[in-house]
Amino acid sequence: MNRFSKGFLLVLEGLDGAGKTTTSNLLTTKLRQKGFKVLQTKEPGDSCIGSTLRTLVNTTKENLEPLAEYLLFAADRAQHVQEIVRPALERGEIVISDRMADSSLAYQGYGRGLCSERIALVNAWALGSIRPNLTVYLKLTTEEALMRITKRNEQRTRFEEQNAFLERVKSGFDTLFATASSTRLSVDGTKPPQEIVSIIYHHILENSGR
Amino acid sequence: MNRFSKGFLLVLEGLDGAGKTTTSNLLTTKLRQKGFKVLQTKEPGDSCIGSTLRTLVNTTKENLEPLAEYLLFAADRAQHVQEIVRPALERGEIVISDRMADSSLAYQGYGRGLCSERIALVNAWALGSIRPNLTVYLKLTTEEALMRITKRNEQRTRFEEQNAFLERVKSGFDTLFATASSTRLSVDGTKPPQEIVSIIYHHILENSGR
Repeated sequence: MNRFSKGFLLVLEGLDGAGKTTTSNLLTTKLRQKGFKVLQTKEPGDSCIGSTLRTLVNTTKENLEPLAEYLLFAADRAQHVQEIVRPALERGEIVISDRMADSSLAYQGYGRGLCSERIALVNAWALGSIRPNLTVYLKLTTEEALMRITKRNEQRTRFEEQNAFLERVKSGFDTLFATASSTRLSVDGTKPPQEIVSIIYHHILENSGR
Repeated sequence: MNRFSKGFLLVLEGLDGAGKTTTSNLLTTKLRQKGFKVLQTKEPGDSCIGSTLRTLVNTTKENLEPLAEYLLFAADRAQHVQEIVRPALERGEIVISDRMADSSLAYQGYGRGLCSERIALVNAWALGSIRPNLTVYLKLTTEEALMRITKRNEQRTRFEEQNAFLERVKSGFDTLFATASSTRLSVDGTKPPQEIVSIIYHHILENSGR
């Protein structure tokens, strides 16, 4: 059986529209075909408080303070890690999470102007001893991301404002992933999905020692 | 007109059953009779995310991680301060809040064992530049508090566990208010309500310079 002794945590990051869900689905299928146990999850959303928080952030966004928004995501993260991620890792599974700590740095830090150092401190507190084995940034221009979102018919309000915000978020992700390492990888999000999946798959295999 | 140039923030702290609501109501009536503008508020609850968070914490408490619980309260605090407290203080009003930052130190710090220094850091971040002008701890033994709660017919589950938890919370409050100062006051919660109100009222008057 294909197993990692301490599991393997893969996090997918990037703008909405970058292809995180598609990548997560295709990669999960491929890994399962190869005999790996895979748990697909996301932030915010999959813990006992996640869906309520997701709805709360969406329905109050006109009035929600940036710091309150961040702390809601941090609360979701603390619960998500202990309730969902840690048990799966302890079972030796591969966990694929759509977003995690870097999203807060990019969106609430670079995007909304909160202090990145404080976000990093609270993120570390929320993660406890858990750290991603690999975080992949699916890189796309804001124009490409917005075009894909529009095709999905998702709401696009206050375009100019949104666009300036997304540019800051993108530059945040670009900065966070400026230097590649064994645990951080930036991938061109315009590549065909199967090619992206192949890149990540081989990265995971190298770490599995097989 | 009775006004504070920068408002006056009074926070009432203590165990459930300590008399915070009664004190807040009586004091508000008295201050309004004297011509002061008073805003009564509470944590969690009075911001645009407060009631949802209050319900979420109550309905998930069996599974909610202590850190997630704390971060939800911190998110509520950040929103509450910016949306409710700060505007009222800027209008020169007296704000009376049932619970605020010290509750997190007592309940999630002393009670649930989270790191008090980290809680204090995040509390300070959530409060921004706002600090209470006076925090009053209504001190009661856990036995007295539980007796009062029982009279209200509130739920008391897992008594022994709850009792040990409340003892830790109480010792937290006792420690936080061990030394009185111009901004921190410990009051015997078994005193008659009107006497408690009178003590706090005169403390506020001293600060109004009249």
